[in-house]
Amino acid sequence: MAWSAEERVRELGLVIPDYADPPYGERYATMKAFHHLGRQLTISGMTPEDRQGNRVFPGRVGETVTLEQGYAAARYAAVNVLGLIRYAVGSLDEVTGFIRTLTFVCVSPGFTDVNLVTNGAADLFIEVFGDRIGRSTSAGIGVTSLSGNNVFEMVTVVETRSPAPEEDA
Amino acid sequence: MAWSAEERVRELGLVIPDYADPPYGERYATMKAFHHLGRQLTISGMTPEDRQGNRVFPGRVGETVTLEQGYAAARYAAVNVLGLIRYAVGSLDEVTGFIRTLTFVCVSPGFTDVNLVTNGAADLFIEVFGDRIGRSTSAGIGVTSLSGNNVFEMVTVVETRSPAPEEDA
Amino acid sequence: MAWSAEERVRELGLVIPDYADPPYGERYATMKAFHHLGRQLTISGMTPEDRQGNRVFPGRVGETVTLEQGYAAARYAAVNVLGLIRYAVGSLDEVTGFIRTLTFVCVSPGFTDVNLVTNGAADLFIEVFGDRIGRSTSAGIGVTSLSGNNVFEMVTVVETRSPAPEEDA
Repeated sequence: MAWSAEERVRELGLVIPDYADPPYGERYATMKAFHHLGRQLTISGMTPEDRQGNRVFPGRVGETVTLEQGYAAARYAAVNVLGLIRYAVGSLDEVTGFIRTLTFVCVSPGFTDVNLVTNGAADLFIEVFGDRIGRSTSAGIGVTSLSGNNVFEMVTVVETRSPAPEEDA
Repeated sequence: MAWSAEERVRELGLVIPDYADPPYGERYATMKAFHHLGRQLTISGMTPEDRQGNRVFPGRVGETVTLEQGYAAARYAAVNVLGLIRYAVGSLDEVTGFIRTLTFVCVSPGFTDVNLVTNGAADLFIEVFGDRIGRSTSAGIGVTSLSGNNVFEMVTVVETRSPAPEEDA
Repeated sequence: MAWSAEERVRELGLVIPDYADPPYGERYATMKAFHHLGRQLTISGMTPEDRQGNRVFPGRVGETVTLEQGYAAARYAAVNVLGLIRYAVGSLDEVTGFIRTLTFVCVSPGFTDVNLVTNGAADLFIEVFGDRIGRSTSAGIGVTSLSGNNVFEMVTVVETRSPAPEEDA
């Protein structure tokens, strides 16, 4: 039987935000949610915020945020990425692979377990998509600050089963 | 009537550097300006420098550079990106969408309005390309330092109307 | 006569790790080595580590690591990238261009010669692939910390002669 990411979401009881209602972008007038070209779907930078802009564990890992909180924030942002994938292509089952994740963690200079924070996102994707589809190439970077004092931000590019619909240019 | 980015550039009175004269890359022997594969045009990292290497507002936002100066530096770098797009494909009107921008701002640890700096680039693209084409997926990251003490650097990937010409391999 | 990257590797006497034996990823359970879609091959973030996890010049450029050591670390990571390209597509001679490199260097706030460190990777690619194929669009970013106290990490995307094989979805 084929793996279904949508079924896994139900099994895991994940609550995924709906970026259609209200539409994504009202609070971010200069950004768009995604770009789909061919089978490459690029998702905008996502942070651990709910749709009202409330942040999960803002601050800096190694100072005001613990490793465990950072991991939870990364997982929260990754659930938001799932919401944007649905918004872009309708269903998580359209995803046939992860092309790339690039993850940024706000850290103190002495904190070097960046990968243990970003695993919060990587583990979530494997739980939902399975090992074959959910693993990604990735890099995790410890940085000085992120917008709105967020502790985590990630850029995600996935491969979709169907190419983007042709537009009238 | 169709939107023309080249016409908008004239209306806005933007002065865009010509990267053909002298050719891009003389000062950066190890880099190239762009890579075009299919309809995906990747632009090399651009900073707020003129073609002689003079930097606009070098330093660190939150310390030696104000928010307004950082915004202006981001806009300056984005104008340079327009120059590289022309250099790559001849005309800004070849751009049919922004796939991704990834922006880096040199900041002090206490500065968390990274997005208000990077808006300098995002606003410029929307002024030139309009809301439908000029909006991009994006992430803005506050970092420790950038080459040459630049305050801003951005990576840009756009979609082009025509695919890259086939090469003799 | 056509340039051969594999022949250049022999001439230069480079020792490139074999990521097939033992298979890549045993130490990084949440990552995969590469993603190949069409002619775009994305390589996972690579650091200056050998296959046992021993790090080359860990620390921070401007404090505990010199510029020369940082350059050597960047070169070491780039040699690892060559290993992953072979692992992905069998031969370096499959590479027809560098689409993008994005490089991160762990630095002290006062260190702004980020590009002189990242040249360690850029120079290596040009030595191996020649100027026409080996040059890349690129950005080099000075950051707070990298996983495992590494001094350098890079993300690489190359163009391949042949598109990825079709999968049974």
